[in-house]
Amino acid sequence: MSAGVADAASGLEPELERIAAEVDALFSELLVVPADPREQLYAAMRYAAIGGGKRLRPLLVVAAASLFHVDRQRALRVGVAVEAIHVYSLIHDDLPSMDDDELRHGKPTVHRAFDESTAILAGDSLHALAFELLADGLTHEDPFVRCELIAELACAAGPAGMAGGQMMDLGASRAGLDLAAVTRLQQLKTGALIGFCLEAGAIMGRVPPEGRTSLRGYARDVGLAFQIADDLLDVEGEEAKTGKKVGKDHEKGKETFVSLLGPERARQQAALLVDQAIDHLKPYGEEADLLRAIARFAIERDY
Amino acid sequence: MSAGVADAASGLEPELERIAAEVDALFSELLVVPADPREQLYAAMRYAAIGGGKRLRPLLVVAAASLFHVDRQRALRVGVAVEAIHVYSLIHDDLPSMDDDELRHGKPTVHRAFDESTAILAGDSLHALAFELLADGLTHEDPFVRCELIAELACAAGPAGMAGGQMMDLGASRAGLDLAAVTRLQQLKTGALIGFCLEAGAIMGRVPPEGRTSLRGYARDVGLAFQIADDLLDVEGEEAKTGKKVGKDHEKGKETFVSLLGPERARQQAALLVDQAIDHLKPYGEEADLLRAIARFAIERDY
Repeated sequence: MSAGVADAASGLEPELERIAAEVDALFSELLVVPADPREQLYAAMRYAAIGGGKRLRPLLVVAAASLFHVDRQRALRVGVAVEAIHVYSLIHDDLPSMDDDELRHGKPTVHRAFDESTAILAGDSLHALAFELLADGLTHEDPFVRCELIAELACAAGPAGMAGGQMMDLGASRAGLDLAAVTRLQQLKTGALIGFCLEAGAIMGRVPPEGRTSLRGYARDVGLAFQIADDLLDVEGEEAKTGKKVGKDHEKGKETFVSLLGPERARQQAALLVDQAIDHLKPYGEEADLLRAIARFAIERDY
Repeated sequence: MSAGVADAASGLEPELERIAAEVDALFSELLVVPADPREQLYAAMRYAAIGGGKRLRPLLVVAAASLFHVDRQRALRVGVAVEAIHVYSLIHDDLPSMDDDELRHGKPTVHRAFDESTAILAGDSLHALAFELLADGLTHEDPFVRCELIAELACAAGPAGMAGGQMMDLGASRAGLDLAAVTRLQQLKTGALIGFCLEAGAIMGRVPPEGRTSLRGYARDVGLAFQIADDLLDVEGEEAKTGKKVGKDHEKGKETFVSLLGPERARQQAALLVDQAIDHLKPYGEEADLLRAIARFAIERDY
């Protein structure tokens, strides 16, 4: 399918453009390049953080927060904090000793455009920036809410979440994984952060944990559907559109949803997950239309 | 001077032993190795975090917090958060593309004992752990206090602090730096985190910013004295005691306090800074004796 078809199907194009501009603007404001020898560090942070990516995570935060009438500017700050974590993880995952990637968002990866040490430090710096953002009173007036956001994001990013999933992904055993193991790996590597995005909306809206079940279900299903779509794009996508090298998983002998299920069943499974995700949103009525559109976009995109 | 002389001079030995045991115990409790493919990640985190280092930063937090009668267990959690940041920075700084070090605390660096990707992820995971610890209600009952600790630590660790200092240190220009530039570099690279340790004690004790001037002065002076002592140990120390390779700065053509001042004037400068640091503690009377001992230890140690 073409980008045009995907956009028509999801109706998400204006929302994607809006959030991309907002995320770029906030990163740009936060990352002012100093006139001292740290110039290159800030330049690398800006190179990685500004002007690339689908900004799906910030959009999820903003969409979830809107269900509870949270101020968009505040939700955006949380969205940019998640995006800072996401971008740092891409910089580190692309390093030669990790996935050794040359291309990201259609341009050279940070360690190629700068150098390895700058890339490591730019990732580390974006990691710290995420928590600095969340701790600030501008993000939410209630420090209890800020602390809960920080605790959840730290957990989702750390060894019990994203970093743990990346460790599993690098493990020598990835070649022999079954469907349950690949699912578990992806739930940590990409699912934990996507789960945080929805949880963050509820936290900002002061929804107690027992009222977050539907959103958690949505996040779990969308996260997996998104990953299956990514695996399909690695097999069937075009480098010009995805902005990264394709065929990487196969080349590395990694089991993925597509290698285990075949492309046809993988596509069916992703569609089923999106239907399930949308089912979870019933309690929210029309107000959840943006989350519904994001769920459809997760599998209809060609980048 | 021998370790025995240093200990006698500072009287700090029992405090150092106590804090080391407490830090090890808390890290051990926090880092339970899971029975899944993340095992190696947790093993690497434990390898780096447990059983090594002087634990000077946690001791500074505990000593500063004690001035305001903060519960030691809570201060210890903050101390372990700073130490998690410190340890992550050592792991990343030791990487081949950074300082390329083989030895740390008398044993192989993490990327040597495990591999590079595990080292990067272990550092990232300890980074996230620090903020997870601080956000937890066990650290302080007041979420305002927790948010202030998080904001300050994130700032001290990020591009405006430690990561920015490391970027300066890696910069090609280090060879031509003058004393002001080396001082500025070290104030970011090591000073920011040491500054946080003292600030954290005051934050936990609910001392408003205008009441923290003396502690900030102490932190600035001790931080620089500590760094000068490190530079001296790199020239005059014994690898068996420092647990890391010596002569590294000279080998890399880096300007240090010792290369710029010569060892004798560097030693005098460090002693002067320690006197100044101790002067800052006057308002606190005898209760600050532990901070005084730490200041002396900063330059009397041989490791």
